[in-house]
Amino acid sequence: ALHALARSPSVMLSVQDALHIVLSTAHRLKSISVPIHQALGAILSEDVSAPEPHPPYPASIKDGYAVVAADGPGEYIVIGEARAGDDVAKLVVKPGTVSYITTGGPVPNGADAVVMIENTSPVHDEFVEETGIKKVAVLRGVVKGQDIRPVGSDIAQGDTLLRSGDKIGPAEIGLLASMGFTHVKVFRRPRVAVLSTGDELVDPVKGATLGRGQIRDSNRAMLLAAVVQNGCDAVDLGISRDEEDELEKKIDEAVASDVDIFITSGGVSMGDKDYVKPHLERRGKVYFGKVLMKPGKPVTFATIDVPAKASNSKRQMLVFALPGNPVSSLVCFHLFALPAIRQLAGWPDPYLRRVQARTTLPMKLDPERPEFHRVTVRWQVDDGSGRSGFVAESTGHQTSSRLLSMRSANALLELPLSDGVIPAGTLVPVLVIGDLSSMPVINPNSSRPNHRHQHSNSNHSHGNQEKLHSS
Amino acid sequence: ALHALARSPSVMLSVQDALHIVLSTAHRLKSISVPIHQALGAILSEDVSAPEPHPPYPASIKDGYAVVAADGPGEYIVIGEARAGDDVAKLVVKPGTVSYITTGGPVPNGADAVVMIENTSPVHDEFVEETGIKKVAVLRGVVKGQDIRPVGSDIAQGDTLLRSGDKIGPAEIGLLASMGFTHVKVFRRPRVAVLSTGDELVDPVKGATLGRGQIRDSNRAMLLAAVVQNGCDAVDLGISRDEEDELEKKIDEAVASDVDIFITSGGVSMGDKDYVKPHLERRGKVYFGKVLMKPGKPVTFATIDVPAKASNSKRQMLVFALPGNPVSSLVCFHLFALPAIRQLAGWPDPYLRRVQARTTLPMKLDPERPEFHRVTVRWQVDDGSGRSGFVAESTGHQTSSRLLSMRSANALLELPLSDGVIPAGTLVPVLVIGDLSSMPVINPNSSRPNHRHQHSNSNHSHGNQEKLHSS
Ligand SMILES: [Mg+2]
Ligand SMILES: [Mg+2]
Repeated sequence: ALHALARSPSVMLSVQDALHIVLSTAHRLKSISVPIHQALGAILSEDVSAPEPHPPYPASIKDGYAVVAADGPGEYIVIGEARAGDDVAKLVVKPGTVSYITTGGPVPNGADAVVMIENTSPVHDEFVEETGIKKVAVLRGVVKGQDIRPVGSDIAQGDTLLRSGDKIGPAEIGLLASMGFTHVKVFRRPRVAVLSTGDELVDPVKGATLGRGQIRDSNRAMLLAAVVQNGCDAVDLGISRDEEDELEKKIDEAVASDVDIFITSGGVSMGDKDYVKPHLERRGKVYFGKVLMKPGKPVTFATIDVPAKASNSKRQMLVFALPGNPVSSLVCFHLFALPAIRQLAGWPDPYLRRVQARTTLPMKLDPERPEFHRVTVRWQVDDGSGRSGFVAESTGHQTSSRLLSMRSANALLELPLSDGVIPAGTLVPVLVIGDLSSMPVINPNSSRPNHRHQHSNSNHSHGNQEKLHSS
Repeated sequence: ALHALARSPSVMLSVQDALHIVLSTAHRLKSISVPIHQALGAILSEDVSAPEPHPPYPASIKDGYAVVAADGPGEYIVIGEARAGDDVAKLVVKPGTVSYITTGGPVPNGADAVVMIENTSPVHDEFVEETGIKKVAVLRGVVKGQDIRPVGSDIAQGDTLLRSGDKIGPAEIGLLASMGFTHVKVFRRPRVAVLSTGDELVDPVKGATLGRGQIRDSNRAMLLAAVVQNGCDAVDLGISRDEEDELEKKIDEAVASDVDIFITSGGVSMGDKDYVKPHLERRGKVYFGKVLMKPGKPVTFATIDVPAKASNSKRQMLVFALPGNPVSSLVCFHLFALPAIRQLAGWPDPYLRRVQARTTLPMKLDPERPEFHRVTVRWQVDDGSGRSGFVAESTGHQTSSRLLSMRSANALLELPLSDGVIPAGTLVPVLVIGDLSSMPVINPNSSRPNHRHQHSNSNHSHGNQEKLHSS
């Protein structure tokens, strides 16, 4: 019912309903097997369990001597060495003897504990001199099992290493490598084509000077970067004039390039050459063409059936026809195309992450449309309320043509459709669109007191118990 | 004085002091000019100002008619068209006439406002039929300047577009493209070599079965992924046996490969074949070799002077000799190598970002060393204190050989050196080491109530004023 309603050109959907339609139309891509180093950032498509225990042999945690714990302190003959990498097949530590061992070295048969080297000292006596046999004094007793990692103590054979839906980062790659996996099954990364439309557009690479009525195409470079940043393969389809047959050819190119998602910008306004929506209606299925939001109202979502190469079955190419204004296109990319990209890539939760942040300035609401106000969030030990939290600073004037309002924006503040003004210091929901591990930091005292202050965004972090703020 | 002290092998530095030494030794790399699409993720090395105004011509915000505002409502002759991309050089709108105009189209001379198409209707009268001249009825008056973006209203010529130190993301690339920049000056991305050391190591790609005493080399794949994830060029130097001349050859290889940072793991323990520290002492300068931390105590930092290729001057290669335990190596990578990478790459603030999070379980403190406990942080509308905030969940048993404790870890909880236990629900500092835009979400009510709930981690987000939590 929602879908039927949404297709009516007069209906203006809410952002929530529009996103719901997108995510119920977008489906996970097939899983493929890739070399583990190529899986970085991808989503695992199956549970992985440990084919072998780790460590695979009883391993020493320290450099020192493998001993029989019951022997206790005293002088012992060193019968061999168990260095990391040695197989120690023929080495047996009997009571009264010890073996040299290094960190990670295999504990020889017979030994049941390790004495760390700091608790030993070499013995130089007559016996040693005459025989060349080494001896060591064990200065402290150890308990059975001391400083030994038993077989499987880190990972038992059959343990779940990783789960379907896990995002593969460095640690996950390390885990896979440690268990001998050279390949891993992940959801295929989406292939996304980007096209700009508009007779006024000049390719930035070619356009040294602009004629009157011309502007440079900034959306394509921007959206291609956003696509790459989000782990997709990007296909640059260039610029299409405002001619229906040019658009048709570009769609054919996207289909031939086997893309999963086709992103256009421009051509969705009310002008007599705004061919994109009518053309998508003829070529595929338009799900919605207007969303109650600011910026981005004319954002359009459609699908086009394409023949699947491998079989005779059809598959769908998702089409996001974004508005031409650079800000509108990038905001709509994040609100609609990015969750779809994540869904295709297998994310268990494809939605943008929402956090609460405190406003630094009063914010005027829009009585006609909910607004996605671009902000830069940063963390403050005191967000103004006496507690730690995010603070959201506006990027300034929010006109949808003013791309400067996206500069350094790492979140979208969700302002409700309403009259009035939200006072400074209000806790508001923001959607995260940037990498918070590089969020700006400020030091309220404006300088780092001394070199012992590791982190410039906090004065509360050093000393010991001081750094804990009890609830 | 700190440096001299730190070089004494018996001294155990604090993490803060060690990081201070690293960052006072690491210097920003030279800035280079790169094509804008290659600048994604890099740090701008100069301010960029706008060489031209934007929009470069007075542009229509709407599809409709360019008019003389003083004319008011009434029927007007349409004397031409001003579509996006037209130069409208010969078009002059005199009082009593209008011009068709599209979104982004240049406002013709004479016109001083735009009436949107929704407020007009086409006229079909005898005059129109006989002459073929078009007429339109303007239904509503407009004020001078209405729906026109004046020249330079988004960006004035000479305005600062971007500042030195800005991180280049999609919006920044769009801004540069819009102003005709094909290249931009950024700090060069660091080139980082990764080497594993240890006689016990088997290349995961080659090692189908392990002999006793052997383990697979997981650190190299893991650290290479961490290096790539942080925007560096990675050089894989393979595995070095525990032989000093092999290590020497690998250092030569790193120098020949022109790397800025050389990361090793293993060989920094107390074993008789732990050559890495002594070799670095001979080959270069060791700044520290022990840090009071858990895990990661034997982490070592050194520099090696190398001849700069382009000139006769020397430059320094930074060396991080990380412990061999996979967890220790990855924790030390984040605490020491990553800030160095960021410093080289020109980040104005290279430190890990610190936020406060609430513990979900009691946590035992270590009376001997401050501990970096691996946690997964997520945002909760109620973090347990009735307020929104981060919650930090332990990744489980923290043995430094247990790489599973890094799985899905996106932060390091800074536990102070102390006795006792921190109760659940305590607000503690955590260092962000993962991308929070993919942090896990939970819905405390375990299911999404209905499709109108866009974001599964919040039930407070919909409706209008409801979503604002006043302070
Ligand atoms: Mg257009
Ligand atoms: Mg070793």
